[in-house]
Amino acid sequence: MSQPIPNIPAKFVDVCLSPDLIHLYAIDDRAVVVVDILRATSCMVTAFAHGAASVTPVAHLDECLAMKGRGFCTSGERDGEKVEGFDLGNSPYEYMNETVRGKNIAFTTTNGTQAIDKVRGAKNVIIGCFLNLRAVANYLRSQGGDVLILCSGWKGRINLEDTLYAGALIKALGGDYTLECDAPRMALSMYEHACNDLGGSLKDSSHVKRLNRLNIENDIKFCLELDRYDVVPVLRDGVLVDSTA
Amino acid sequence: MSQPIPNIPAKFVDVCLSPDLIHLYAIDDRAVVVVDILRATSCMVTAFAHGAASVTPVAHLDECLAMKGRGFCTSGERDGEKVEGFDLGNSPYEYMNETVRGKNIAFTTTNGTQAIDKVRGAKNVIIGCFLNLRAVANYLRSQGGDVLILCSGWKGRINLEDTLYAGALIKALGGDYTLECDAPRMALSMYEHACNDLGGSLKDSSHVKRLNRLNIENDIKFCLELDRYDVVPVLRDGVLVDSTA
Repeated sequence: MSQPIPNIPAKFVDVCLSPDLIHLYAIDDRAVVVVDILRATSCMVTAFAHGAASVTPVAHLDECLAMKGRGFCTSGERDGEKVEGFDLGNSPYEYMNETVRGKNIAFTTTNGTQAIDKVRGAKNVIIGCFLNLRAVANYLRSQGGDVLILCSGWKGRINLEDTLYAGALIKALGGDYTLECDAPRMALSMYEHACNDLGGSLKDSSHVKRLNRLNIENDIKFCLELDRYDVVPVLRDGVLVDSTA
Repeated sequence: MSQPIPNIPAKFVDVCLSPDLIHLYAIDDRAVVVVDILRATSCMVTAFAHGAASVTPVAHLDECLAMKGRGFCTSGERDGEKVEGFDLGNSPYEYMNETVRGKNIAFTTTNGTQAIDKVRGAKNVIIGCFLNLRAVANYLRSQGGDVLILCSGWKGRINLEDTLYAGALIKALGGDYTLECDAPRMALSMYEHACNDLGGSLKDSSHVKRLNRLNIENDIKFCLELDRYDVVPVLRDGVLVDSTA
């Protein structure tokens, strides 16, 4: 599975550690994998694994709420907490039952959907998290071309869990991708030192501490599971759909 | 030396991995340590260690060149190479002899002086590098208050050597500083895994590869030496002076 594909020109993988640095990267000619481990992209992947028809990422709260009247299931959070009037929050466990099957979901979060908004001009936008790590790596290899991993971070600041995912995806992509600058080197090094105990590596991280106040240890544990799902959400005309469906 | 000072309130240390993220950090109430290991801040520290009277960081080339007529020694680089018409380039070896003693130096570089320019509003601006690591840590502890380490990076992108320095300074500051978010955690972790072989850890880094094309292996080796000098350059009215002089 991780064998290099023969006769394919050199491919590059890069990492943008914060959406506030995205202006430094050319995205129109490459696939961008957006990650927000805790918890937006983990929720989106879980929703597709449980039969959601589509997820529309929306940057603003009021825009999301307005979509309720147009038949959308409204989901998301601000500062980690569910928004009043929304159908669903930002726990992956809310996306595991029949309420999401066949549904079109409008989704807004503090960081993840804002990050997606910034890369709409990319050749391809893919939603990644630990839950669909191998599936995304296989998809990227099958599509060919260069890859940028965009970490959603926290309000512009970098975070540990998204950086570790970037390292994990680089490792899963394998040796036929060239690391483009120091950010992928750092992400890969961080992941290689942390991969035997992701949960332990993250226990002091800013976001885990923030979420611990919300009593969602189970969410965190779930979001760090590798390769649970095979779905690969991709952006088509502003709407995420499962490319494997 | 690294003992906590008793009866001092909790202090924080944070890391800004790129000048393009500085808008996320409050700097008016804290000391900012600017680092550009390869090679601006290493040169500045070397200059002060050899008797330079002052270093004026200048963001623009033409502004720097104009200062020659006002008696300044002009120094710096663009994209790693010395600028035509300038007295000195960006190799620390150029700042080790009598030509710098007593001189007022006007200094402009691709990244380091631009980073300094962005934090002129800080409570205190300090110039750090591996060469004066312990001296800067001692100075910060003696001054008290919170610390931000600003990595100059490369044209907005993060780089490995400045990140490793941030980790080294956090380690040198010791346990009485609280890590403020995930960036200092990452920097410290990277340094702890790399500190036994800084040169080896950096051999694949973007900037070292870039500089290798300029044949300056000796510069790189020198810039990774720890605690060679005791000078602590600080910004006073827009001009760097040695606080230990």
